[in-house]
Amino acid sequence: MPSDRKQFRDLAPPEEAHEAIASLDLEPGTEAIPLEEARGRVLAERVDAELDVPGFDRASVDGYALRAEDTFGADEADPARLELAGVVHAGERPDVEVEPGTCAEISTGAVVPPGADAVVMVERTDRVSRSETDSANGEPVSDREGEDVLVRTSLAPGDRIMFAGADVAAGERALGPGTELTAREVGLLSALGVSDVPVRERPKVAIISTGDELVRPGEELDSDAGEIYDVNSYTVATGVEEAGGVAELYPHAGDDYEEMERILTEAAAECDLVLSSGSTSASAVDVIYRVIEDSGELLLHGVAVKPGKPMLIGTVGDSAYVGLPGYPVSALTIFRTFVAPAIRQAAGLPEPRTATVAGEMAVEERYAEGRLRLMPVGLVEDESGETLVYPVDKGSGATTSLVEADGVVEVHPDTEYLAAGERVEVRLFSPDVRPPTVFGVGEDDPALSRLLDRLDRPRYLALGSREGLRRLRNGVPDVAVTSAPGEVGFDAEVLGTWTREWGLVVPSGNPDGVEGLGDLVDRDLRFVNRTSNSGLRTTLGNALADLAAERGVERHDLVEAIDGFDAGVRAHESPARRVLAGKADAGLGLRATAEALGAGFVPVGEEEVRVLGNPERTGKEGIERLREAISEATDLLDSLAGYGR
Amino acid sequence: MPSDRKQFRDLAPPEEAHEAIASLDLEPGTEAIPLEEARGRVLAERVDAELDVPGFDRASVDGYALRAEDTFGADEADPARLELAGVVHAGERPDVEVEPGTCAEISTGAVVPPGADAVVMVERTDRVSRSETDSANGEPVSDREGEDVLVRTSLAPGDRIMFAGADVAAGERALGPGTELTAREVGLLSALGVSDVPVRERPKVAIISTGDELVRPGEELDSDAGEIYDVNSYTVATGVEEAGGVAELYPHAGDDYEEMERILTEAAAECDLVLSSGSTSASAVDVIYRVIEDSGELLLHGVAVKPGKPMLIGTVGDSAYVGLPGYPVSALTIFRTFVAPAIRQAAGLPEPRTATVAGEMAVEERYAEGRLRLMPVGLVEDESGETLVYPVDKGSGATTSLVEADGVVEVHPDTEYLAAGERVEVRLFSPDVRPPTVFGVGEDDPALSRLLDRLDRPRYLALGSREGLRRLRNGVPDVAVTSAPGEVGFDAEVLGTWTREWGLVVPSGNPDGVEGLGDLVDRDLRFVNRTSNSGLRTTLGNALADLAAERGVERHDLVEAIDGFDAGVRAHESPARRVLAGKADAGLGLRATAEALGAGFVPVGEEEVRVLGNPERTGKEGIERLREAISEATDLLDSLAGYGR
Repeated sequence: MPSDRKQFRDLAPPEEAHEAIASLDLEPGTEAIPLEEARGRVLAERVDAELDVPGFDRASVDGYALRAEDTFGADEADPARLELAGVVHAGERPDVEVEPGTCAEISTGAVVPPGADAVVMVERTDRVSRSETDSANGEPVSDREGEDVLVRTSLAPGDRIMFAGADVAAGERALGPGTELTAREVGLLSALGVSDVPVRERPKVAIISTGDELVRPGEELDSDAGEIYDVNSYTVATGVEEAGGVAELYPHAGDDYEEMERILTEAAAECDLVLSSGSTSASAVDVIYRVIEDSGELLLHGVAVKPGKPMLIGTVGDSAYVGLPGYPVSALTIFRTFVAPAIRQAAGLPEPRTATVAGEMAVEERYAEGRLRLMPVGLVEDESGETLVYPVDKGSGATTSLVEADGVVEVHPDTEYLAAGERVEVRLFSPDVRPPTVFGVGEDDPALSRLLDRLDRPRYLALGSREGLRRLRNGVPDVAVTSAPGEVGFDAEVLGTWTREWGLVVPSGNPDGVEGLGDLVDRDLRFVNRTSNSGLRTTLGNALADLAAERGVERHDLVEAIDGFDAGVRAHESPARRVLAGKADAGLGLRATAEALGAGFVPVGEEEVRVLGNPERTGKEGIERLREAISEATDLLDSLAGYGR
Repeated sequence: MPSDRKQFRDLAPPEEAHEAIASLDLEPGTEAIPLEEARGRVLAERVDAELDVPGFDRASVDGYALRAEDTFGADEADPARLELAGVVHAGERPDVEVEPGTCAEISTGAVVPPGADAVVMVERTDRVSRSETDSANGEPVSDREGEDVLVRTSLAPGDRIMFAGADVAAGERALGPGTELTAREVGLLSALGVSDVPVRERPKVAIISTGDELVRPGEELDSDAGEIYDVNSYTVATGVEEAGGVAELYPHAGDDYEEMERILTEAAAECDLVLSSGSTSASAVDVIYRVIEDSGELLLHGVAVKPGKPMLIGTVGDSAYVGLPGYPVSALTIFRTFVAPAIRQAAGLPEPRTATVAGEMAVEERYAEGRLRLMPVGLVEDESGETLVYPVDKGSGATTSLVEADGVVEVHPDTEYLAAGERVEVRLFSPDVRPPTVFGVGEDDPALSRLLDRLDRPRYLALGSREGLRRLRNGVPDVAVTSAPGEVGFDAEVLGTWTREWGLVVPSGNPDGVEGLGDLVDRDLRFVNRTSNSGLRTTLGNALADLAAERGVERHDLVEAIDGFDAGVRAHESPARRVLAGKADAGLGLRATAEALGAGFVPVGEEEVRVLGNPERTGKEGIERLREAISEATDLLDSLAGYGR
């Protein structure tokens, strides 16, 4: 077997991995981009003002431009009277000069005309016709034509004027290098008339997934040949963009040396950083090793973290290189922990400030290995708003773990045990992550699945009735959903119930003429059962016990006679889909599923689905909203064949 | 004057403005986008799995696929021996069937071949040639050709196999409507082969700035005609994009009814929301009123907040409409407070979680008006890491306020007074905002300005030596920079000093033959001074006092004789630029400035620039970094004409 397995025995501590990545040169260059596209970018160099803002002495209010000395001593009772000599609007060149004893109407933002050294706001003035007479003596107040302005306050030079350059003066440092451009910096650049902004280039990151079995989403998949859709390319590319980089997807590389070398070398020539992932076969790892050693330098291989042990750090050509593990959760966790900070730094972006939350462990957790563990966790809030933290680690390459976790708890290599109730700090996947409003575990049921669409940010793990009840008893979820009959054996509040018709899903038209459970026992039919966590399987078991009693035989003997009883598939549609694919003659399922998929259906019975609430959290808003949604779900139950209250 | 002024007397409370905006229908439609572009978007509908993941029974480890029953009872000492019948790699269709007593080599991720029901990891096996002999009896262990595998453990059916659909089963609900798509959701969609993702359209927001004086950045500016660069269009557009909308910039609208109606109506037809801003002239507001009333509905005008009183909310055609105030800081504050939440909601994005920080007021602040005040504030950290909060409100349309503030404190209408030391909550402009590493106020100096480029996230307000000293005495900034001679009159630590040569900046070649300060007094020269906050002006005053003493006259008489002494410009390059523009014959300035701008220079003297540290914060890292940067700045001082230690 491959010799590289031994090479992981000397695992580097995580700090060394950080240092190795920091030693790689990711620094991108500089480019000029239009102001409209500058959001989120980082200034590559300082920007000095090349002009005064404002570029002229500017009126700060609507009113009249005047000579301050003409108003000395004026007040409410004894206004100064000035001849109105003209008007200046914003955006026009003044065609009036303010001589002593005169003024000009002026709009906010307009150029203060020559001669004026202050502006009075319109609220402190009155405008009078020159044909008005003086109220004291009946004489005309003026022998001139037109209008005058009475100014009822004294002004000092400079009042209500923003002088040229008062905001920003030509030659001033406006923004420093490294400034991230948000709305406000864009505003200042606009004011300075900067339309081409010198910014750091975003680091260009090549994404290469290795594995002959990978197919791009949207393309045809041949499952029988072991093909799977490529997850890491898109996940890591999105992570790269989130960190401020530009992701470039490259073709999948198989484990052929020439092909791998060609793709890695091409990617290295075009990008600042090359990321590979997904060497599920050991021989691909071997090939990558060889390519790195031939075309670059291997700085580090193997890091003492779980998940993610098989990380590679080095160079290919002139580019930095990091090899990520193959499982999606591992790849993304290692990417976020080690690579994203380096991309952000190269892009000039700060580490997100507030991406942690404190909570307490909802369950205990034990650790064996002496490695730093990056434990993916989910969050749930209790009734008081306290955050509870539970591990989410399928450890099996499951992509669902990606969305079932909210963040990561770093568990020190020396920690062997985390007690329930112990405080831990969770590094959130993003600062906006928050716990679901309601967290349920239990039966996979089509009505429930539609109900979830009516709730805001629910989380539901369809792990079956038995697992739902087990977890609810342990106090972690808000809700369990069960279709297994009988007492649950612990305190739980029923939030709502409905019924569903179950039976055998058969090919359309029921070509074998299946009539009921007896045929599974008596005839040579290939049957598809559900897994033992399924409430529906428990119901089937009870029905078979009834049949055994009827026939006067042991239930065990009936079960033994059914081809396929012991195995089982996890999800509610899977048996029906196997039947439709011709892989089985009958499957355990629901009338609703059979109708939805166009299969035949042989009814056997009806079972009750119960939604049970965590008795410690009856006041939690998300639980209350679920209760309401169930009580208002009559339309939804009516739309599903075989469903009722 | 315009009648609308009265209409703002009945100001609506802020809650009514929120409700009015909430009543507008911004809901965009649905579109399908490629998975590669899905980052940050929001699912418009639920996504169910249309296939099983994995699509086949998949080996979880490198090893051998076998029949579990063939290993029953096997252990380290007594391995089961199986004939190696073939090999299955990832991504290929098995061409081997595992018969009893045989096994097939298998790679992680490969299809478990027919007949096998378990996989043993390679570490628990040994491979032996069939020509090997049994160590016990010396006989050949096998009479067959090829290799055998020794399995040193017992396996149960299903071991190390991930069954088809175990991760996600066809028909399962994968992601709910309203889910924001980050790296992990993109990963799950990839696994499901979803290449076109149904997402909510981003709300389309029209941006219209009103005002005849506005010019787009990059175009020619005629300052003498009162033109200014348009700030609000770009600031608000960036804010719209930050909130998850799509900003569409429309041409500037003047205050002509037909033009305004045409642009507003066109924008309303094309967008979900129309935002206008910048009606600096009252008549433009009048026109907008009339257009809204003719083509839509005005729901609310005038809100009891400061800044931002003149907000309009209504509809134009089928689109929502909000009119923002004209000053950039006011427009952005009102946008963020009232409009951005509505855009985020329409886009389906959550409110940012942690965009607040608590701090204490660094200074006292008094309030007169009974309006909610959205006070822009800056942040500075003291030595212990406590956040201090100080108001930033030039209240004059200054665009520099945009970048000098870090967030907003909401001050209740009934609050008349905030004491220094009082706790306040700051709503940050974005969750990533953090206080500058070092905050300085003081003299506008070219060497300092370049020094700042060498620091990480500094903030410096070039308000002059006098203002710097005043603020440092009040304890707000970390640092003051002064070029005024003499004692500062309070405790402050000198972090570093340098000298600069000052004098008179004259046109290139010094055509008037200016020889010194005496010429300003004795000849008819137009002089440009700096403002009284400038340390350089103080130095000039001292030099004139010396000249007066020399001549045996009063200093006052000399000053009176200088044309332009009393007025002054704020920034260090401004006098030189006025001279170069032919608007003056001599300006107060530095040799470095004159050389940089290609002007002539008449030296008068040398002054010392002192960088003074807040004595309460001598241990602060940012201050220490500045001290180091000054001591290492010899290259920088050498590069500036007239500078030295």
